[in-house]
Amino acid sequence: MTEKSSPAPRDKAATQRRILDAAIAEFAARGLSGARVDRIADAAGANKRMIYVYFGNKEELFDHVVAEALQRLIDAVPLVPEDLPSYAGAMFDALMDDPSAFRLSMWRQLERPTATTAESRSYAEKQDALRQLADGPEATAVAGLSPSTCLALVLAIAQTWHLTSPALQDQLPPRAVLREAVVESVRRITAP
Amino acid sequence: MTEKSSPAPRDKAATQRRILDAAIAEFAARGLSGARVDRIADAAGANKRMIYVYFGNKEELFDHVVAEALQRLIDAVPLVPEDLPSYAGAMFDALMDDPSAFRLSMWRQLERPTATTAESRSYAEKQDALRQLADGPEATAVAGLSPSTCLALVLAIAQTWHLTSPALQDQLPPRAVLREAVVESVRRITAP
Repeated sequence: MTEKSSPAPRDKAATQRRILDAAIAEFAARGLSGARVDRIADAAGANKRMIYVYFGNKEELFDHVVAEALQRLIDAVPLVPEDLPSYAGAMFDALMDDPSAFRLSMWRQLERPTATTAESRSYAEKQDALRQLADGPEATAVAGLSPSTCLALVLAIAQTWHLTSPALQDQLPPRAVLREAVVESVRRITAP
Repeated sequence: MTEKSSPAPRDKAATQRRILDAAIAEFAARGLSGARVDRIADAAGANKRMIYVYFGNKEELFDHVVAEALQRLIDAVPLVPEDLPSYAGAMFDALMDDPSAFRLSMWRQLERPTATTAESRSYAEKQDALRQLADGPEATAVAGLSPSTCLALVLAIAQTWHLTSPALQDQLPPRAVLREAVVESVRRITAP
């Protein structure tokens, strides 16, 4: 009998990190159907079997990647309930700086429309915060929109550039001008 | 030598129509990578070779389907430059009634970001119409937004329901209420 050696914990964590980074790139570029676990293994310098051991099958790896990307976005762009225009501007910036969160959430929307735990928690908290605001002295700050409607509209507007058809995208103004239009749109929508 | 018979023109048109309808359903559900020409052939009661003869390879068939779906949407929802809130409401309705145009345009955005001729023409016409409006007595009707920005924002807002995460989508208000929020948002954004 040979003695099996497990990788050191630090090596294991480093390999898992390389696999996840490669998986984020592959799934963001090609989606769930289009992604190949072989390519992820090659890019991560890992073998396919380790991917299955650490993260399960392709669907489970996709879920893991989507959850991580959305958690990062939630952490990077906290809701400012009393200043939704700034929240929209910060979300616009985050999506422009790194389109992978937009792409991953859109592939998820199309290919595997299930909510992540972090998202469900985050949306519940955000709706609570907006509800409290509506009950307070600034009651009109969300213009009579339900918290969910308000969030959904603000997020749609923040994604404007990414949603725009290639037939129109190159005619959009420079990023700073479009950002200002996004912020101003949210200001108008949420004004008393 | 055997004499080859071509199908009657009417049969040919009917077969092409069945193939396109099956292709719309398959590509809308699964995207370009996920779609299988075999499934399209089965659903259309056609053989795979005829699909290649009539429409080319899978990418070309996808382009054809996207172009047709977007042309239908353009025809179904004409721009009313002086009444963008109504335009947004009509676009919202069209996308809610038949989500396939949203899904096809989003797969295109992610998998094959190229403009169709009809779209490029349509966006040029729409921008012209908005520009003429801005030069006329109702100059402030688009609130200082460039025609492209205005169109991009209005279309993003009209897609709100489709863009909303499954973690939030079931908390959105009933369709009529969300439609009113979309129309009112565009009214506010495009107000003087």
